[in-house]
Amino acid sequence: MHDVDFRGFASDNSSGVHPEILAAIAAANGGHQAGYGDDVYTERLREVFRSHFGPEARVYPVLNGTGANVVALQAACDRWASVICADTSHVHVDECGAPEKVAGIKVLTVPSEHGKLTVENLLREARGFDDEHRAQPQVVSLAQSTELGTVYTPEEIRTIVEFAHARNMRVHLDGARLANAAAHLGEPLRAFTTDVGVDILSFGGTKNGMLLGEAVVVLNPELDRGMDYLRKASLQLASKMRFISAQFIALLDGDLWLRNAAHANAMAALLEEKVRDLPGLRVNHPVQSNAVFATLPADALAELHKLVHFYDWNEPVREARWMTSFDTTPEDVERLAEAARSVLGG
Amino acid sequence: MHDVDFRGFASDNSSGVHPEILAAIAAANGGHQAGYGDDVYTERLREVFRSHFGPEARVYPVLNGTGANVVALQAACDRWASVICADTSHVHVDECGAPEKVAGIKVLTVPSEHGKLTVENLLREARGFDDEHRAQPQVVSLAQSTELGTVYTPEEIRTIVEFAHARNMRVHLDGARLANAAAHLGEPLRAFTTDVGVDILSFGGTKNGMLLGEAVVVLNPELDRGMDYLRKASLQLASKMRFISAQFIALLDGDLWLRNAAHANAMAALLEEKVRDLPGLRVNHPVQSNAVFATLPADALAELHKLVHFYDWNEPVREARWMTSFDTTPEDVERLAEAARSVLGG
Amino acid sequence: MHDVDFRGFASDNSSGVHPEILAAIAAANGGHQAGYGDDVYTERLREVFRSHFGPEARVYPVLNGTGANVVALQAACDRWASVICADTSHVHVDECGAPEKVAGIKVLTVPSEHGKLTVENLLREARGFDDEHRAQPQVVSLAQSTELGTVYTPEEIRTIVEFAHARNMRVHLDGARLANAAAHLGEPLRAFTTDVGVDILSFGGTKNGMLLGEAVVVLNPELDRGMDYLRKASLQLASKMRFISAQFIALLDGDLWLRNAAHANAMAALLEEKVRDLPGLRVNHPVQSNAVFATLPADALAELHKLVHFYDWNEPVREARWMTSFDTTPEDVERLAEAARSVLGG
Amino acid sequence: MHDVDFRGFASDNSSGVHPEILAAIAAANGGHQAGYGDDVYTERLREVFRSHFGPEARVYPVLNGTGANVVALQAACDRWASVICADTSHVHVDECGAPEKVAGIKVLTVPSEHGKLTVENLLREARGFDDEHRAQPQVVSLAQSTELGTVYTPEEIRTIVEFAHARNMRVHLDGARLANAAAHLGEPLRAFTTDVGVDILSFGGTKNGMLLGEAVVVLNPELDRGMDYLRKASLQLASKMRFISAQFIALLDGDLWLRNAAHANAMAALLEEKVRDLPGLRVNHPVQSNAVFATLPADALAELHKLVHFYDWNEPVREARWMTSFDTTPEDVERLAEAARSVLGG
Repeated sequence: MHDVDFRGFASDNSSGVHPEILAAIAAANGGHQAGYGDDVYTERLREVFRSHFGPEARVYPVLNGTGANVVALQAACDRWASVICADTSHVHVDECGAPEKVAGIKVLTVPSEHGKLTVENLLREARGFDDEHRAQPQVVSLAQSTELGTVYTPEEIRTIVEFAHARNMRVHLDGARLANAAAHLGEPLRAFTTDVGVDILSFGGTKNGMLLGEAVVVLNPELDRGMDYLRKASLQLASKMRFISAQFIALLDGDLWLRNAAHANAMAALLEEKVRDLPGLRVNHPVQSNAVFATLPADALAELHKLVHFYDWNEPVREARWMTSFDTTPEDVERLAEAARSVLGG
Repeated sequence: MHDVDFRGFASDNSSGVHPEILAAIAAANGGHQAGYGDDVYTERLREVFRSHFGPEARVYPVLNGTGANVVALQAACDRWASVICADTSHVHVDECGAPEKVAGIKVLTVPSEHGKLTVENLLREARGFDDEHRAQPQVVSLAQSTELGTVYTPEEIRTIVEFAHARNMRVHLDGARLANAAAHLGEPLRAFTTDVGVDILSFGGTKNGMLLGEAVVVLNPELDRGMDYLRKASLQLASKMRFISAQFIALLDGDLWLRNAAHANAMAALLEEKVRDLPGLRVNHPVQSNAVFATLPADALAELHKLVHFYDWNEPVREARWMTSFDTTPEDVERLAEAARSVLGG
Repeated sequence: MHDVDFRGFASDNSSGVHPEILAAIAAANGGHQAGYGDDVYTERLREVFRSHFGPEARVYPVLNGTGANVVALQAACDRWASVICADTSHVHVDECGAPEKVAGIKVLTVPSEHGKLTVENLLREARGFDDEHRAQPQVVSLAQSTELGTVYTPEEIRTIVEFAHARNMRVHLDGARLANAAAHLGEPLRAFTTDVGVDILSFGGTKNGMLLGEAVVVLNPELDRGMDYLRKASLQLASKMRFISAQFIALLDGDLWLRNAAHANAMAALLEEKVRDLPGLRVNHPVQSNAVFATLPADALAELHKLVHFYDWNEPVREARWMTSFDTTPEDVERLAEAARSVLGG
Repeated sequence: MHDVDFRGFASDNSSGVHPEILAAIAAANGGHQAGYGDDVYTERLREVFRSHFGPEARVYPVLNGTGANVVALQAACDRWASVICADTSHVHVDECGAPEKVAGIKVLTVPSEHGKLTVENLLREARGFDDEHRAQPQVVSLAQSTELGTVYTPEEIRTIVEFAHARNMRVHLDGARLANAAAHLGEPLRAFTTDVGVDILSFGGTKNGMLLGEAVVVLNPELDRGMDYLRKASLQLASKMRFISAQFIALLDGDLWLRNAAHANAMAALLEEKVRDLPGLRVNHPVQSNAVFATLPADALAELHKLVHFYDWNEPVREARWMTSFDTTPEDVERLAEAARSVLGG
């Protein structure tokens, strides 16, 4: 019913399901398994996450990325809290006010550099502790990789964690594309999460080849209170959870997560290489995961949209966002590069 | 990794995915399709739902049943509203307070008869209009089939709709098992929804053979405002929506929905037939869909749990709930019946 | 601008301000005092409340009764909690869904006897602990005196507290008319609050002669976390708090609270004495505070409304509610009794 | 119990109650009046507000300023809305996240100039209409006078209203100090509210000499839906409302509102005149209402705090905020000016 040969650069969630994951879904089918996580797949998944994030890690599969973030943030703060994040963050920009609506959390933003928080910028809002007129800053939320495709080093995250913990704040990591960050860093997942003191994270599956499924991972056991209730009351509990868990097992029990992410990253790097010197085109951020953000002349941008499918990130400044995925091919990249060349006369 | 031959009577969501639906997922894979519903499957799905519910029907695929209910209820009421439902309803009993938590809606309950609302009982709470101290009753929410496996006739629903509309209230129908009701009634879906004036409904896919996926269906166009935002802000928007829509198409574009439901219903009827005359066992509600509720002596119930997997509905009164599913076989039923005979000495 | 000689039996909040309290407001005027509770009156008030409720008691003045309840309930429970209260309780019936709307709390009701909770009835909802599908019952909320004018003995409250604490639930006491209960019992306030283990309470000032002002009193120090933020974020922080605190001091630092309440109670008792034997009239609940609930024949009730100002509590069953206040006079009572006699032909 | 001769510059809510208002409270005492606004004072108040804001204006007295804002914002937007306001606004900075917590509203901020919004800055966030991932901008909220003591001209407000209405957004005006703006502009209240198209406003009483009381004023009748319920469910309904209404009548039925505000403004102007040329002191914003914001050398600021009571607005940049009130005297001003001279050596 659709063109299975069509691929663009609109989003990593435009891609489908990786064949190994589809096979895992089929293998998990048949017979009866208890709903809501009391199944053997979810049981196994708990081990799998511990193997990646350490023995204290507790995983709670959920339904989508916004859900993961909203559940995680609630676990990390009181009813009177604010969360500090980058002005470019998904939590602030792309969740239709879900943290506010579902959880009543105030979201405070600070400027970011290539999508990354800095201690200096955090200081703008990490203040007013003990002032009853101020929603109390209790969480720093950062994304890894960021909304702009950049990646924090473990040391950068550690610095933010230390900053936060020194103020009794928790650190939430939005890891919708955590695998891409790991692939870029060449580090295991725990190196820039558990090991540097992150308290809780959202772990993405959908953008890395799953059909549907994300997870909240509690790293700091102090936050592991009432998570089952939070997940359910926040509309994030899957009944046939075995099928989400089986996908995650397929992704994480071997190296599929890393293969997929590394491939997507490589395709973005290839794309950048091919376009960065084109006349009139400027790549705006370091390409460290699976996204390339580039500014083009207005005419060229308009022409390019006729040739390849992608979205503008920031229309007024003529910035395109090109996302690669586990299924992006070098030919896809060349097609985009060729189109860019043609419209830019490069 | 699990025993694919094991089946019990715990819940219809213990079953897996119907093969035709799994095939539809595979067929929808490959290539890129825009996320969040801008794909060809979701486009087609809109037609499919209109074919079932009439030309005004608008479908919004969502992630789980609680999500469907909470989104639908918000669409149907103001910030100061209460919803009236049966004391046995899923909305009240089994959603961990999600309508209250996510939407701030007050849930008012009235006694029910075999899980069904009556106008007489609704009158207990459908009052206090124009009293500012009272959360304004704006919605009647009923389930079809009900939490106790019974089914309203179209006329019964029409009566409730008329009661509600006469008071400027809307009617929400929790249709997690709507297909089972249709199978029981031998009526098309619209006969007891659109045609009798229901305003909005939750339509269940997961319990009828899907992997994951429910839908909000807006029947009254006045309620079709801001639904995209409500769904997103309520954590119910799927990114790779094509895979939910493809499942629903497989279910609803032919007669799979009806086959699955009719089969599950038939298995429940068969079970009831086999056990209803056993000594000491009492079937508590008319068996009109895919559930049998039965009271047994305490000892027998305890013994039975050792032989077959199912849940007690109401432990203090020794009531068992036996759910059948699209994949329940006559042999499964006979195994449960035989076990019941053995513990009851019937 | 209004008739200062008119008094009815509509509500204890139809009365005005006791002269001693008005004088206290005037005395607190002049000069500057820091806002939001950093004033000498609020400082003194903290001592006053400790003198009544014990050295651990912490008082937080708030703006109205619903606000006091909603702040107190939040302090006592998690984001996934339900509160169990009587089906007749103000929290459920008369707060326009504020606990649900402002705090996302699910309110569960159980039948009551003359407005009072019993352990037997509490058992209907104090269950489902550890069931993720159920909003977790974490608070029992009872009113003292109750919405029907009855008063729990200290022992009755202790029994409920023990029941609740044994299930890790907290006990909230809605004390909008706590003074009336103390007057009835002839006990100090702490005898049926602190001393029997109540965790948190709402303390009413407005209905006992204040212009405006209620308080949340935290008795269990474990609940004394973030109260300042909860109060502010729940719209209950007064800027010129000195004027609320000064009223409370006038009420509570001497015996005005008790004089006012005892007088109101006495007027209700006098009224009951005068009407209870009238033909066709039935007093429905023990008169233990400042309310008389009576059923009358429909015609008589309609006639009576023409003669005296009061509200029907339950129109369908022809039940009148007559509230007395600190300013109700024996002549007012005789006027109502005389009117009742005339319409009943007693 | 307190020093009635002490006055500082901490806040206009450090002052007490104007004698005429205290007299009005006393005059409203005695007898019974129906609660919750069904009294003769509130009835009269409705006329008074219409006389100021036009025949369509509807007033809803509430309890505090945050409450007024949160009720008004809810009346102006859907469940999926965001509100755009200045980064310095009270709604964002000083309400402990109440709009988010109580109403689930996302608050978006834009830079301001001397506390004032501009169309150019509004454009930063007034975008993304029809994007389901974005909380829909539905309200522009501005303060008059602003948090920094500046005042919009009617024409400036009209420009913002036109900007907003052209995008189907509503305009909310936080008028905690609306009277001060009117005094500055020399215009009637409606000249810069009703007459320029403002949809709804919060009207402040407390900071202008009342004991306690604010109001929501609905100017656009389309927003006048369910206000009674919104007020009650948002914890803002006063039971003995006559005493709030009587204060407002005293304030607004004659010219007390203007006298108080004009006096406070004059005291701020006097203060600015006395200090603006002091060495090392810089007045940071036009003094157009009852506040002076000034930067001082750190040592001088520290010394000054020992001599006069006031708060720092922005500690890191050594900015003091001096608020005047209806009861500030020229002698008070001279005392502060003299102290400033002494610490600055001016």
